Amino acid sequence: MSKDDTQRIRLREVSPDDTEALWDILEPTFRRGDTYTIDPMISKQEAIAYWTSSDKSTFLARLHEKNVGTYYIRPNQSGRGNHVCNCGFITHPKARGLGVARQMLEHALKKAKATGYHAMQFNFVVSTNTRAVDIWKTYGFDIVGTLPEAFDHPALGLVDAYVMYKTL
Amino acid sequence: MSKDDTQRIRLREVSPDDTEALWDILEPTFRRGDTYTIDPMISKQEAIAYWTSSDKSTFLARLHEKNVGTYYIRPNQSGRGNHVCNCGFITHPKARGLGVARQMLEHALKKAKATGYHAMQFNFVVSTNTRAVDIWKTYGFDIVGTLPEAFDHPALGLVDAYVMYKTL
Repeated sequence: MSKDDTQRIRLREVSPDDTEALWDILEPTFRRGDTYTIDPMISKQEAIAYWTSSDKSTFLARLHEKNVGTYYIRPNQSGRGNHVCNCGFITHPKARGLGVARQMLEHALKKAKATGYHAMQFNFVVSTNTRAVDIWKTYGFDIVGTLPEAFDHPALGLVDAYVMYKTL
Repeated sequence: MSKDDTQRIRLREVSPDDTEALWDILEPTFRRGDTYTIDPMISKQEAIAYWTSSDKSTFLARLHEKNVGTYYIRPNQSGRGNHVCNCGFITHPKARGLGVARQMLEHALKKAKATGYHAMQFNFVVSTNTRAVDIWKTYGFDIVGTLPEAFDHPALGLVDAYVMYKTL
């Protein structure tokens, strides 16, 4: 696979048949535990329930018949805050550097606009996850908040997390 | 009731018998809809389920045998973010100005320290809720983030919301 494959990445909404595909993508990232505030020991069942909960629309990214990533989009708040959406993105470790995160974000931004959201907010971007921070910045997200030592990084200890925001 | 009554405010953890007491406090604030991102039309059952969900410890503030306020405390994130707590506070409209919010916050801060939390985070303080913002600042909370136009205020339209944070 090469960077030229980016355009061949296809996204579709998940179905109940995608449990294994989702877990294959989620497990390495959740177990590593250095980017998401998910219990690293989370069970497969809990992880799938979380990633596909009823408030979310969840998508699967596929490339050459392989599952390379997944993301969800949901209202970040209810009631009078539901015009701002929130997303979570996970790329399969073996599919890094292929533009999967960018493709998913572009899909999410289109989806968000089509749904009528005014803005997209990431509530907790671990500051040491520079790969993600740099991509989000490229797409116009600002760091609008810094949460001091809010993440207990497995290797680095307490590090900051960012709140990132993009008006659509 | 006067300001001298502040010291007579007592807090205790809620029990299933407190449904009516909680709803009496929650309903006016949720219906008014100018401080919380809760659907203003939320049902009693949904509101109680939200305010007393299993991730939360929920308390009732009483003064002279009246229910004057309620708050919850919970981990703001799971996994490696669970050393930061989050709280929600609601004072009964008829008990305003008696120091109920301050008493609840002091109780929450003690509870948070005793539980071993490192910090307390408020994810969404509506910027026009100056009463709350001022109290939180008095107790050492900083505005660490501003979410542009993230709240659709029923009277004022789109206004900012703050992320507020206090290291314990």
